[in-house]
Amino acid sequence: MDVSLANATAVARMIASRPVLTGVARAGESIPGMHDRLLLHAGPPIEWDRMSGPLRGAVIGALLYEEIASDEEEAAGIAASGAIEFAPCHDHSAVGPMAGVISSSMAVYVIEDLKHGHRTYSNLNEGYGKVLRYGAYGPEVLDRLRWMNEAMAPALAEGLAGSGGIDIRALLSEALHMGDEGHNRNKAGSLLFLKLLAPMVASLELVPAEATKILAFIGDNALSVLNPVMAACKAMGDAAHGVDGSTVVTAMARNGTDFGIRVSGLADRWFTAPAGTPDGLYFAGFSSADANPDIGDSTITETAGIGAFAMAAAPAIVSFVSGTPRDAINATLEMYEITVAEHEHFTIPTLDFRGTPTGIDVRSVVELGVTPRVNTGIAHREAGVGQVGAGLVRPPLEIFEQALLAFAERYGI
Amino acid sequence: MDVSLANATAVARMIASRPVLTGVARAGESIPGMHDRLLLHAGPPIEWDRMSGPLRGAVIGALLYEEIASDEEEAAGIAASGAIEFAPCHDHSAVGPMAGVISSSMAVYVIEDLKHGHRTYSNLNEGYGKVLRYGAYGPEVLDRLRWMNEAMAPALAEGLAGSGGIDIRALLSEALHMGDEGHNRNKAGSLLFLKLLAPMVASLELVPAEATKILAFIGDNALSVLNPVMAACKAMGDAAHGVDGSTVVTAMARNGTDFGIRVSGLADRWFTAPAGTPDGLYFAGFSSADANPDIGDSTITETAGIGAFAMAAAPAIVSFVSGTPRDAINATLEMYEITVAEHEHFTIPTLDFRGTPTGIDVRSVVELGVTPRVNTGIAHREAGVGQVGAGLVRPPLEIFEQALLAFAERYGI
Repeated sequence: MDVSLANATAVARMIASRPVLTGVARAGESIPGMHDRLLLHAGPPIEWDRMSGPLRGAVIGALLYEEIASDEEEAAGIAASGAIEFAPCHDHSAVGPMAGVISSSMAVYVIEDLKHGHRTYSNLNEGYGKVLRYGAYGPEVLDRLRWMNEAMAPALAEGLAGSGGIDIRALLSEALHMGDEGHNRNKAGSLLFLKLLAPMVASLELVPAEATKILAFIGDNALSVLNPVMAACKAMGDAAHGVDGSTVVTAMARNGTDFGIRVSGLADRWFTAPAGTPDGLYFAGFSSADANPDIGDSTITETAGIGAFAMAAAPAIVSFVSGTPRDAINATLEMYEITVAEHEHFTIPTLDFRGTPTGIDVRSVVELGVTPRVNTGIAHREAGVGQVGAGLVRPPLEIFEQALLAFAERYGI
Repeated sequence: MDVSLANATAVARMIASRPVLTGVARAGESIPGMHDRLLLHAGPPIEWDRMSGPLRGAVIGALLYEEIASDEEEAAGIAASGAIEFAPCHDHSAVGPMAGVISSSMAVYVIEDLKHGHRTYSNLNEGYGKVLRYGAYGPEVLDRLRWMNEAMAPALAEGLAGSGGIDIRALLSEALHMGDEGHNRNKAGSLLFLKLLAPMVASLELVPAEATKILAFIGDNALSVLNPVMAACKAMGDAAHGVDGSTVVTAMARNGTDFGIRVSGLADRWFTAPAGTPDGLYFAGFSSADANPDIGDSTITETAGIGAFAMAAAPAIVSFVSGTPRDAINATLEMYEITVAEHEHFTIPTLDFRGTPTGIDVRSVVELGVTPRVNTGIAHREAGVGQVGAGLVRPPLEIFEQALLAFAERYGI
């Protein structure tokens, strides 16, 4: 069996993926298998009793939002009772940042891979401060979600319906030339997103105050595009998944307790181990003692060759995640050692327009002992406090060792 | 006399300048000394008979636009007759890219320097293709100008009037961390500009089609913010001007025939010599044989420490102006040799956040024989063909030698 050939096939499919944002719809009406008593969450599978603070908070928030529970205590009881089904976003073609909780009445971005034909999904970004994805569930969180889902999402849906969609791969190509790395820094990408959405929103028959609110909400949030970018990277990962004999990683995700990966040639099995805690810079008043273990599906960006893998493109990010611009370059250079290709569409000007390191090979990770770098936000370990910093983290080496062992067993090597 | 102390004062004033875009108004009602029979133009003073093709074309276009002439021939006759007064934008606190022609009924951005109290102005950017600033004056050019001045400008004026203005220095600080250098690459800055303008425009009682057109016009033009940036840099240059005993350059400008500079301690005298032709990359179908000599007031950006001086911040620009990312870094590094300060607000991530080289010292230019680098668009030498490329150019050394001689005479050194 030629693993290298299988990996070349997998990564070629990943790079050829052409994810386009074509719509916004309700999760319950678009995500396959979604139903009223199902909550999707970030990372590999987990049950209530092992969930960390921020994920529990987001679950409580979603149950309140859906009016399945009327207060926190009732929500926690229901969540623990087994009356609610939990499943990874990834098992339903979806991704969500941080807690990544998606319930059926929430709006989601719909991405279509024009090359391979599949669809992927992600929720809408809430902005900063007290937000569901960090486990907050107070009235202002639920009110904002209601406005996003009932007012903004239909407007975006109507605007997008009259357009040819938004080519997220092209947007990312441009953003990487504008100092973004696509995971923790999406300033330029979010503005490019606004540029495309603004005329669409302005063309609708909205009252001026509502159009203003939508454009300010999207424009003032430098993470606006993170969610469709994640769904686009999910489309790329899915494109590379299921290639017989391939050791390319097609998903990396954390639920706040465990870090999990999936591998192209190993079907839908998760390989998991306890998630680490990021090293980074903390906002005033917080320290590493406040940090939750690594959480969120946003590592799908590194899986697809951006995020920390493209950090050389984003030297300004070091003021946010720590380190120097030289460290940012070194982060990217190191990732070439564990990847099988250089991206055709994602290039880094300062590296003479070299393509980003793309397609993590489980074999190289284990052989070299070099785990993928991840660039991430840091959540407070208690529900609802919010983001307390940003930094760098790596998945545990053992999940790659598990995967390689499983690969050897599966293929009889 | 302590020239270094005078230069430190001048550059400190330049760096402390805080230009804020506070309004949009008609040139005739805002620019000091503007009147119906006056046309402002880029660069140092020049009369009709010495004007190059693109500047002549823009003059003809302005006379048609103002209905002073009814056709090209009549316009050229009037321009040559002495019935129209010509003056540099710079003599009226204004700047304009390329031909830089401003007539009294055109709309201009109004910049207020909140630190020093003075105002500066620039016209609105027309976008790409056949445009007045490259000397085109066909019906589509005049129609676009009419829409900009009669529809877009009043909307921007109304939106800005209800805001606290747009801090252009802060916008530039951010854009330099997003791969812009502020002269030839203003992609990020133009999107930051859109981000601030979009909610303002959406809040007005415009018909949706008009709001859509305005937001698409601004968003689709990666040079939208160039003009207010130039006016902001003009405010910085003006802040540094008039410091007794200072050899700091406070304006660099080209009219398509001559390159001129002004120096802080030498009042409003221009030192001029024939403008060179940029070296660069040409659009398909054009070559250096088509190029007009260097033209435009946009060198006010380099004067204020951005543009080519900040090229290390914009590695992706080399695909547009030629060279490698290493050349871009070297361009910035070289400029430290001829400048007196590092900018406090404009920093370059890849140079470990070092401030941009700011405040060109005529003495250093002459002593080292190193002229300022300029990053520029290239105009076709015939009126109205438009932009044919982009590249790099330097002013003639002799204008710095003239200035140094005049300085020695003026101060009896």
